[in-house]
Amino acid sequence: MLLGALEAGGTKMVLAIGNENGEILEQTSIPTETPEITLPKIIDYFKDKEIKSLGIGSFGPIDLDRASKTYGYITSTPKLAWVNCDIVGTLQKHLGIPVGFDTDVNGSALGEATWGSTKGLGSSIYITIGTGVGVGVYQNGKLLHGMLHPEAGHVLLSRHPEDTFEGICPYHSHCLEGLASGPSIEKRWGKKAYELGSEHKAWEIEAYYIAQALVGYILTLSPHRIVLGGGVMHQEQLFPMIREQVKVLLNGYLKTPLLEDLDSYIVPASLNDNQGIMGCLKLALMELEENK
Amino acid sequence: MLLGALEAGGTKMVLAIGNENGEILEQTSIPTETPEITLPKIIDYFKDKEIKSLGIGSFGPIDLDRASKTYGYITSTPKLAWVNCDIVGTLQKHLGIPVGFDTDVNGSALGEATWGSTKGLGSSIYITIGTGVGVGVYQNGKLLHGMLHPEAGHVLLSRHPEDTFEGICPYHSHCLEGLASGPSIEKRWGKKAYELGSEHKAWEIEAYYIAQALVGYILTLSPHRIVLGGGVMHQEQLFPMIREQVKVLLNGYLKTPLLEDLDSYIVPASLNDNQGIMGCLKLALMELEENK
Repeated sequence: MLLGALEAGGTKMVLAIGNENGEILEQTSIPTETPEITLPKIIDYFKDKEIKSLGIGSFGPIDLDRASKTYGYITSTPKLAWVNCDIVGTLQKHLGIPVGFDTDVNGSALGEATWGSTKGLGSSIYITIGTGVGVGVYQNGKLLHGMLHPEAGHVLLSRHPEDTFEGICPYHSHCLEGLASGPSIEKRWGKKAYELGSEHKAWEIEAYYIAQALVGYILTLSPHRIVLGGGVMHQEQLFPMIREQVKVLLNGYLKTPLLEDLDSYIVPASLNDNQGIMGCLKLALMELEENK
Repeated sequence: MLLGALEAGGTKMVLAIGNENGEILEQTSIPTETPEITLPKIIDYFKDKEIKSLGIGSFGPIDLDRASKTYGYITSTPKLAWVNCDIVGTLQKHLGIPVGFDTDVNGSALGEATWGSTKGLGSSIYITIGTGVGVGVYQNGKLLHGMLHPEAGHVLLSRHPEDTFEGICPYHSHCLEGLASGPSIEKRWGKKAYELGSEHKAWEIEAYYIAQALVGYILTLSPHRIVLGGGVMHQEQLFPMIREQVKVLLNGYLKTPLLEDLDSYIVPASLNDNQGIMGCLKLALMELEENK
């Protein structure tokens, strides 16, 4: 069975055709311009592919409340051309198939939970640390929604005692995204993350912030495993530093067999950075089940 | 239909008989001594009451994983006599009825979500701030479990700039319970919370810590409403102070209709402090459904 997958990002749209086993059969990407330019291109790509349904993992914030009048809309995004864009409705109308919809990071959490490093676990989270920071939450077959979806890239942190950088978040002087995203590393040190070298002081500060956020997620969501993805997490030296800081900050308070093996508890993204688009295939599949 | 409810606390056990409408028909309490002394008294109380099932909201940590060999146990509690106590198995064996089990705060979250101030909402949290600090999480008819249950009373916070108190948590120098529980207020100011008077500086610091924690829960769990209960929250002057600090800290980042009305979003416990024992009635009812 053929399924469509759309990873809708602020700078590019990744479009793919795959199947119910998470296999990607073809894939392309186009730049994200305005809805008037970009949505017709997306429709053109999918319309003759004989897909049974489409799954979208989107930049946000988005409306995921099926009872809402604006369900399926991108809502108050800083990408102004896309504010109040009815992406689900538009694609559904032109393609005539069920369209599943969630945040990009919830999509990645779903991809990992279905085919990747958190497969078979009841609850898990996926954190992307790149241009922005986002958190997807998977729990017992579902993705976490509530009033909105998780926006846990903006959790507030305590400053590293040696960090005087003001942060780059326009809303918060000391949130995770503001202090630990790729752009914040670049602005703090005047170089891109991958130019710093693995011994740079930057990584101690970075691990300190990421670990603080993880401790909050562990205490609040109690996941069975945490996956760290995104461009910044290609710096592999961060993993042992983050695990060590998590241990220091939890300080033995939680006693579980899973936390005794932090190498298995806090892991890199798997699936060759395809967890997002594969998650969209699963969203397509779930929407099809929902519509049966 | 008669149901049993047991709120198992570190200092006392509250026992009640009620029904599927959350009505409490009789209630008593006994001190929490050792399992050898206290469990037989609990069995005696319930055994002739013709209850169809029993719900327990317990102090913890507890094992809620039904696949685990120690499901239904109180595990690594600081109340040493109760470490590895098979409370569910013991009561089930002697009473011969289904026994539902969850944390005390998850029980309270369930009570509020079933009959109280979060009734009808998809997701909500209940926070108790008293001798300890605990958080219960309700999502779409279920209570949040994962690796463990939420332990979000220990989330780490940034210190108030004027607060030099070292905190009372033996694990964390700056967690919510360590800085904002009843005993921490008493130790910081040398008086019990209710003796301080509503104009005391204590409340500004207290609201600052509680608001920080709420912002983390909102960004991570995205509840439709937050209920604040427990002894400290009887200080009603805290509510407007907490709402104001939440607004300052979120700083307009999340735009939802619910957050535009913080008076309705952050509310006191309802049900006359019976949300815990009423939640146990609902746990009993859910376990009965589970066993059908």
